[in-house]
Amino acid sequence: MTGTAGEIFQLIRLGDAVTRIEIIEATGLSRSTVVARIGSLLAAGLLSETLEVGRSTGGRPPGALSYNEEAGVVLAADLGARHGRLAVCNLAGVALVEDEQAIRIADGPKKILNWLGTGFDELLAAAGRGRSAVLGIGVGVPGPVEAGRPVQPPIMPGWDGYPVADEMAARFGAPAVLERDVNAMALGEHRAHRPELRNMVFVKVGTGIGAGVICDAQLLRGNHGRAGDIGHIRAIQDSDVLCTCGNRGCVGALASGAAMVRELRANGVEASSTADVVSLVNAGHAGATHHVREAGRLVGAALAAVVSVVAPTAIVVGGALAEASEPLLAGIRESVYQRSSPLATGELRIFTSRLGVHAGVVGAATLALDHALSPSRVDELLARREQAA
Amino acid sequence: MTGTAGEIFQLIRLGDAVTRIEIIEATGLSRSTVVARIGSLLAAGLLSETLEVGRSTGGRPPGALSYNEEAGVVLAADLGARHGRLAVCNLAGVALVEDEQAIRIADGPKKILNWLGTGFDELLAAAGRGRSAVLGIGVGVPGPVEAGRPVQPPIMPGWDGYPVADEMAARFGAPAVLERDVNAMALGEHRAHRPELRNMVFVKVGTGIGAGVICDAQLLRGNHGRAGDIGHIRAIQDSDVLCTCGNRGCVGALASGAAMVRELRANGVEASSTADVVSLVNAGHAGATHHVREAGRLVGAALAAVVSVVAPTAIVVGGALAEASEPLLAGIRESVYQRSSPLATGELRIFTSRLGVHAGVVGAATLALDHALSPSRVDELLARREQAA
Repeated sequence: MTGTAGEIFQLIRLGDAVTRIEIIEATGLSRSTVVARIGSLLAAGLLSETLEVGRSTGGRPPGALSYNEEAGVVLAADLGARHGRLAVCNLAGVALVEDEQAIRIADGPKKILNWLGTGFDELLAAAGRGRSAVLGIGVGVPGPVEAGRPVQPPIMPGWDGYPVADEMAARFGAPAVLERDVNAMALGEHRAHRPELRNMVFVKVGTGIGAGVICDAQLLRGNHGRAGDIGHIRAIQDSDVLCTCGNRGCVGALASGAAMVRELRANGVEASSTADVVSLVNAGHAGATHHVREAGRLVGAALAAVVSVVAPTAIVVGGALAEASEPLLAGIRESVYQRSSPLATGELRIFTSRLGVHAGVVGAATLALDHALSPSRVDELLARREQAA
Repeated sequence: MTGTAGEIFQLIRLGDAVTRIEIIEATGLSRSTVVARIGSLLAAGLLSETLEVGRSTGGRPPGALSYNEEAGVVLAADLGARHGRLAVCNLAGVALVEDEQAIRIADGPKKILNWLGTGFDELLAAAGRGRSAVLGIGVGVPGPVEAGRPVQPPIMPGWDGYPVADEMAARFGAPAVLERDVNAMALGEHRAHRPELRNMVFVKVGTGIGAGVICDAQLLRGNHGRAGDIGHIRAIQDSDVLCTCGNRGCVGALASGAAMVRELRANGVEASSTADVVSLVNAGHAGATHHVREAGRLVGAALAAVVSVVAPTAIVVGGALAEASEPLLAGIRESVYQRSSPLATGELRIFTSRLGVHAGVVGAATLALDHALSPSRVDELLARREQAA
């Protein structure tokens, strides 16, 4: 490493070196250079320093440096087909304020991004921060993404190729990252609660079904960002249920929240959304519980194939239908364990997301932070602040 | 980069910088340092230099440096359940001599590694090179691998946890890499013929069925190296054919060479190996052709799931049964295109391996070269040669 201020900040943020002496050892830079660069980072407010030993320092020695979690904020959004959840997060990824509203992603990018920009401005005001505090933006959308743009996303008419990341970056004057929602969720759950897992699948069972796959500690993207699009795995051989892709028997058409609603209504049960299905299950409705368990079995059949391909040690189940977790999990476990080879499932655990409905925004914030606090970005930020001073 | 001799060698090997001036620019090192390090590499015989312009230089300017493909050799082996193919390759990965013999991997590591060591010595003698020329070793085996050892490999009794890489490294005094056979094949095909493909699946249809998966230009390994073990994906819902894993309907139990032999014999056709099946197909035997096409359909059903998970742009079909390529490919294509969403297969091509039966050794040589010619290894090599001189 060349030992720029941004690289020194990274060492401190990741906890790899937290005193000047450790930084000198880690970088091989001279004492005077390290002192000067840390001086810039302190002056810009990106770092803080422990001056005295005491209770408040959490046992850090005098001279220990830590990054200032309040030195800026990132904006995070999780956009679904029918909802949008927004948050303003500090640099540790903790949400300072958060909001959820009903939207229709099919209204198209102009309308939705306007709504998103306004929503972020309102949340910034609620958090008492201005736009100048925004260091980065992360947005998750329910479709494949490549280079900051959705790519032929089936349920997002009008969004194909739209420069979402560029538009948000221009609006807030900070770098923006766009990602498929399930990828953001997988990354959020991974960093927040399962950083030790190198091989993990996050499956979202909501209005649709999709997966974010982490293999060898890397998020898989695949051609045009389509990796993990498991909703079209065939779950039943001779099904007459038609999928939007034109095939029959796709797990997404049979086991999603939308499919549950359709099944229940066909049986005369009143339900109009995945949330209704969850309410019925949690109220002990036998028919709804049966359908959700059967949906779990079908999702498990698709996941058994995923297990063979990427050999995970954990499957994390999230999405709106995961709120009806017991019958869903039971069905998934039954099917995955039954259909996989014992060697593949010997160390495999299957559980529900700990982040729950927050997984998407936490993931989007994680993406924004990784991007905004990379060494080169921190160097740029420092140059801008010095110029402004 | 710090600009060691090994790093300079890497720049030259990859063609990123081939003259002293380009290397000075790329590394930021002083002219005298670059000249000295290139001097060591030339003295050690790792580099050669174009002294005059002429036909024989392939148009390179005077002073252009190239790595010396004959400065050493790597040993490469592809071990299957019933065969072992060995090669001695130059530093460009080209086989100087190659040999194939019938083995039984189930004879266990002591017997097989003795055979392997002797075989390599014989091939070295045939190539007119001594053990001192060996810079690295790559070995592929038909089971999952982690850190140079097989991990609970189903068809390799006695091999679980055996330190194969360490033993081969000790025997030949050079670093050794062990890899699952299909991973080596995928990497070999990728580097030799499809370096532009970032998302590619190599499926081996031989005695068993497995896949090597390259996603985002990285070979997937997964927990205990089990990624790509697709032989246990359920291809038929209500099958009565039992798999070694204890389940029914696994594609590996239904569509492998072994399954073809069983089917043909049950119908009174004489066949005892995958090679026999291939011969029958190539001789126009209708029953064999029918069974291989049906096997292709089943393999395609499993691959359709793989396509959903990793979103490849190419499926490369190899392994012994791929020698009967037309009915096998036809069945695979039919099933993959029929069962996948049109978006996932829009850019997907399916073809047979260009390396054919050589894929495994080419992949093993590629692994050995990547490891043996890494910057730090080249620095070590240089230190040893200077000490010896």
